[in-house]
Amino acid sequence: MNADLVLTELMAVLAARLPSAGGDPDSSYVAKLYAKGPDAFLKKIGEEATEVVLAAKDQDHQGLISETADLWFHCLVALNYYGVDPAQVFAELAKRQGISGLVEKANRT
Amino acid sequence: MNADLVLTELMAVLAARLPSAGGDPDSSYVAKLYAKGPDAFLKKIGEEATEVVLAAKDQDHQGLISETADLWFHCLVALNYYGVDPAQVFAELAKRQGISGLVEKANRT
Amino acid sequence: MNADLVLTELMAVLAARLPSAGGDPDSSYVAKLYAKGPDAFLKKIGEEATEVVLAAKDQDHQGLISETADLWFHCLVALNYYGVDPAQVFAELAKRQGISGLVEKANRT
Amino acid sequence: MNADLVLTELMAVLAARLPSAGGDPDSSYVAKLYAKGPDAFLKKIGEEATEVVLAAKDQDHQGLISETADLWFHCLVALNYYGVDPAQVFAELAKRQGISGLVEKANRT
Repeated sequence: MNADLVLTELMAVLAARLPSAGGDPDSSYVAKLYAKGPDAFLKKIGEEATEVVLAAKDQDHQGLISETADLWFHCLVALNYYGVDPAQVFAELAKRQGISGLVEKANRT
Repeated sequence: MNADLVLTELMAVLAARLPSAGGDPDSSYVAKLYAKGPDAFLKKIGEEATEVVLAAKDQDHQGLISETADLWFHCLVALNYYGVDPAQVFAELAKRQGISGLVEKANRT
Repeated sequence: MNADLVLTELMAVLAARLPSAGGDPDSSYVAKLYAKGPDAFLKKIGEEATEVVLAAKDQDHQGLISETADLWFHCLVALNYYGVDPAQVFAELAKRQGISGLVEKANRT
Repeated sequence: MNADLVLTELMAVLAARLPSAGGDPDSSYVAKLYAKGPDAFLKKIGEEATEVVLAAKDQDHQGLISETADLWFHCLVALNYYGVDPAQVFAELAKRQGISGLVEKANRT
């Protein structure tokens, strides 16, 4: 699935877009969101969630992929801003599914 | 990050909750959502997106982890229902970040 | 409060923006939304709802007024499109508050 | 439409549900929301907005009336909490529609 690889690369890019890392609002969409402050990207989360719902209702598979990518992307923008590692979200998902043991075992290997 | 492992396990669980796979609405939250039809889980996407926004505004880190897990979980419930593999969402994210080549190389290894 | 007056005027304007009434997408924002189809204005409802939440969390009174106006406006755009009179929404609110009798009495006067 | 009457009655009820007015969380849904704090009713705004969108996509007219009533109700709960009069929202809507003059004239009559 390459989720780990994509997330790792993506989080490195997002980290470099923070004002504290010198992210340039004139050349980067994410740096511009960060420069505007959290409301700028948080409103995108509400907007994109509705677009996921609409694509689903329209049974638009490509739209569902695209809007889910938009939604998750803006969630990652928020996580990065607040200093949360997406690994913590996956650990939470693992815990709820009762597969934390499986994950720990994979970590040891 | 173990995102691949968690997502693979989680999607297998969700697949088994579909009515066509004999998911039991009486013993499973997800099977109950599927039995009710898409509006039941799509409304959760709107609800959880707002809770992510609220946790962020409250600067509640644990809440942000927990609500993002809730939001992504219900997105995965929807993706599974409509036959979309989350790998397609990560491929879309990779494409947008210009790291598709990196991902393909990883796939060949 | 002049809610009745404002709503009556506003609904008349929205009715004239429907494609069937000859609404011109090039000169009117609402006619453009209608020409694009329901997803165009429904996504605004999700977006503006999040902006109401953000203005509230920011304790931004003017923003709360402005974003609530945006949200209600796009709800009215949707109601008009689907042939629902906002009077039906107020009748529903009256019914829930147990003041339907009061409203009927006002109607008779 | 009786919007003025319904809104006036409703705002009086909501005002009496505030903790400062002695609203009782054990006997009133709104008083309970107020006692829990703003996140409790703000998350309802996101949730109900999504339900409006779903009812619209389902072309469910009764659902659209009912969910719009839910959404506007929780907006009014928020306005009351933050000390905003819905008349200010209607004044904003009037201003945008260029009918403020009409409204002022009605006020003088």
